[in-house]
Amino acid sequence: MDFKEELKHYQKKINKELEKYLRTNNCLEGTLNESMEYSLMAGGKRLRPILVISTYSLFKNDLEECFPYAVAIEMVHNFSLIHDDLPGIDNDDFRHGKLTNHKKFNEATAILAGDGLLNNAYIVISNDLRKMSKINSKELEKKLKVFNEFTLAVDRMIAGEYVDTEYEGREISTEDLQYIHENKTGALLKLCVRMGAILGDANDEELEHLTSYAEKIGLAFQIKDDILSEEGDEKVLGKPVGNDKKLEKCTYVSKYGLEKSKEILENITKEAIEKLESFGDKADFLRGLALYIESRNK
Amino acid sequence: MDFKEELKHYQKKINKELEKYLRTNNCLEGTLNESMEYSLMAGGKRLRPILVISTYSLFKNDLEECFPYAVAIEMVHNFSLIHDDLPGIDNDDFRHGKLTNHKKFNEATAILAGDGLLNNAYIVISNDLRKMSKINSKELEKKLKVFNEFTLAVDRMIAGEYVDTEYEGREISTEDLQYIHENKTGALLKLCVRMGAILGDANDEELEHLTSYAEKIGLAFQIKDDILSEEGDEKVLGKPVGNDKKLEKCTYVSKYGLEKSKEILENITKEAIEKLESFGDKADFLRGLALYIESRNK
Repeated sequence: MDFKEELKHYQKKINKELEKYLRTNNCLEGTLNESMEYSLMAGGKRLRPILVISTYSLFKNDLEECFPYAVAIEMVHNFSLIHDDLPGIDNDDFRHGKLTNHKKFNEATAILAGDGLLNNAYIVISNDLRKMSKINSKELEKKLKVFNEFTLAVDRMIAGEYVDTEYEGREISTEDLQYIHENKTGALLKLCVRMGAILGDANDEELEHLTSYAEKIGLAFQIKDDILSEEGDEKVLGKPVGNDKKLEKCTYVSKYGLEKSKEILENITKEAIEKLESFGDKADFLRGLALYIESRNK
Repeated sequence: MDFKEELKHYQKKINKELEKYLRTNNCLEGTLNESMEYSLMAGGKRLRPILVISTYSLFKNDLEECFPYAVAIEMVHNFSLIHDDLPGIDNDDFRHGKLTNHKKFNEATAILAGDGLLNNAYIVISNDLRKMSKINSKELEKKLKVFNEFTLAVDRMIAGEYVDTEYEGREISTEDLQYIHENKTGALLKLCVRMGAILGDANDEELEHLTSYAEKIGLAFQIKDDILSEEGDEKVLGKPVGNDKKLEKCTYVSKYGLEKSKEILENITKEAIEKLESFGDKADFLRGLALYIESRNK
């Protein structure tokens, strides 16, 4: 399979897992469930769960083990999108070419659907841990480490989003811009790769290389996001372009300009790929993902 | 100690634990931390963590074991209050006689502080599970059960809140009113008692009695809330009275009238206390709590 086929293959796998979860989860009520499902199935790229699975598959073939964590991270990602889009934060009307959650339903539903998705991520993890508890204590210990890193990365993501909202319309220092990028987007992307590696029983050196790779693609992802917000195609992106400028948001583009940002993006992508050297051909998909993040148009 | 002294004693214990957590948790950023702390330390009754601890102490003396779960449940409770108060849901300006979170800070901060508190509850649980993982697999299995019940009860709470928002201004069936009460408030109160009992190694029969007790005081709590919203003292309550009527909210009072509601409250409190019979004197504090819920004026 070439990269694009493999990407589609992974996306299908994830969507199937998410649908399986939504079908068996009867916990939340009617329209609230519908609202959670609306955002969860709105056509995201599934980058985060794909990072979990493709990193895991560097080490092991039985993907089932990492599915719950892939599903949980996609729920957290969508929780953060729903809340970021709210009138009280970014006040966005469109995402992935569709109405945002509060526009499609209403504000109360969107707040609670976000809360529900965050909590459902922990339901998924908790169900997986309980299933494990009698089997193998070493495996369980590993999963408890993953659960712990999961909670802390979500905290970092919330902190990054908070600092981002605080800076709207104000001049930002390079240090604080880096803080926002590392936390708001970077923490979760790093978590995905680390979860895949830890669940795959990576050794310390492998975990270190993969963590560096993740940090670099996390930064690349955010720089590309900033570039697309400035010069992307509204129809392809599915959301308005130029909003960052209007809101005087702090971005790589507003800080360094468009050309310099593209240069940084290119260099950081190269560095990310270098970190995969020791994994040989097996890491081709992760190399492809780094290039995909650099070149994506949405 | 009489009931009131013991209640104060427990409240102090909880506040100390919460403060300890807030001091050692440097994860979330500046004002966001401040905003979480503002709501967490705004003078709540600490009923939920006290239920955990006092149920646990029916069985064991070493309270340390249940503290993380007492802290986590108070965080979840405060997350739900912050989000319920938001303009997009109840739009309340005051709680516990103080400005609500979004009034004190701003809407974006309040949304993220609520998210942060929910997530921090899981950080607390995750830290406790990791500490345990090498010690004793039977203890760990018990805590994984508690974690699982925790996630599901939070889901029920969010579902209850959602149905509540959906019914504003509409006639409600007795069945749906019961659904809201059982989930929005009841699920978390039941969880508190069950967590205390499970962590205390209660046997099946004890767990069953305590669960019934919890269900009854949960219902009593909500009926009393409805009564106070109708005829409470604004100064004592710290929030406006009569709001439920204005919003045409579905309450016991709007459904059954004030006198009939008080009669139901009295009966259900008696039934709750009956469920504690087999625990003898040790359960005096839980009996006191049931009476306190019935007679409280805030």
